Amino acid sequence: MKKIFILKASKAKTSKDFLLNDMPGDGGRMDIVARCVNSSFFLSHGLRNDTEFIVTFEGEPNPPVTLRFKGDRLKYMGPDERCIGGLIKKALENVTEEEKESTPGIFVSKKGFSDILKEADSDIVYLHEDGEDIQTQTFSSDKVYFVLGDHLGLSEEDESLLENAKRISISPMVLHADHCIIIVHNVLDRKNL
Amino acid sequence: MKKIFILKASKAKTSKDFLLNDMPGDGGRMDIVARCVNSSFFLSHGLRNDTEFIVTFEGEPNPPVTLRFKGDRLKYMGPDERCIGGLIKKALENVTEEEKESTPGIFVSKKGFSDILKEADSDIVYLHEDGEDIQTQTFSSDKVYFVLGDHLGLSEEDESLLENAKRISISPMVLHADHCIIIVHNVLDRKNL
Repeated sequence: MKKIFILKASKAKTSKDFLLNDMPGDGGRMDIVARCVNSSFFLSHGLRNDTEFIVTFEGEPNPPVTLRFKGDRLKYMGPDERCIGGLIKKALENVTEEEKESTPGIFVSKKGFSDILKEADSDIVYLHEDGEDIQTQTFSSDKVYFVLGDHLGLSEEDESLLENAKRISISPMVLHADHCIIIVHNVLDRKNL
Repeated sequence: MKKIFILKASKAKTSKDFLLNDMPGDGGRMDIVARCVNSSFFLSHGLRNDTEFIVTFEGEPNPPVTLRFKGDRLKYMGPDERCIGGLIKKALENVTEEEKESTPGIFVSKKGFSDILKEADSDIVYLHEDGEDIQTQTFSSDKVYFVLGDHLGLSEEDESLLENAKRISISPMVLHADHCIIIVHNVLDRKNL
């Protein structure tokens, strides 16, 4: 099954000029984005090539920007936040309306969160603490989108785009987005999906 | 239930002079250590105060050094690798035989991996891909130690110290140590332990 994680990064800076030495502050919680990339792809020896991670940056100065990471094409990526942050900076160097590949496996465009959801062409799951338990779910599609909020969560307007998405819960606790991705992968790994 | 994660960081530098800008290389995979600290403690809004994380650094120039993080005392810690790396540097500034608190909730000593295991005074679980499935396990102690290897795994000598530990598996995949911690927490959260 193909897994596609979608994150809205409400404050992530939409310019290459954020400081790698201050991804939480100057980057607008770019550290969360970097850890979500790590969680989406890294196995002990290799990358998950059946996974995509799509993140929409909504911070200043030029929102929105969308980055799409494709596990089957990624190269030159270490698991640490700084390495991933460096590849994000590179992607932000030259953002155009049309999507293009900045480094292998990383695609950048001017799409926004609603564009990404409208383009989703299979089942959409909204990871939410009030949803049904993921362990009781069956996944019959060959592709599933999992939508995550960042530290600020999703707005009512965002949630209105997710009316047809199924709400699924992965934990009795409220967790960081990158931790949620790990748990979704684990549930699906156990189901051999 | 109190959860205590133990990591052996085979190459982690035992001097404050590692570069925060190169935690994977110069720090001897200090990025893994930092992410394990994140995984051990961070909830969306707060820290897990029922958790400890103990890590033994075995890298140059002055091995071993052990850092012990106590969730119920931690302060000044952000979830990003660089912030956690900075607190680790601070702890490495002045390492003595006797354990002392470098910043709130972080304790440093000259203990080694075998010392840590010998001091463990409750059930020890060795997280290992050949173990029994964690979801079928019951945990009846009020304190459990979970032992993790880093990217190099544990040596035969290390494993001989774990003869009485139960081998438990958390995934059909081989995962990074920080991802393992997330999954253990999730299983215990679901069991309300």
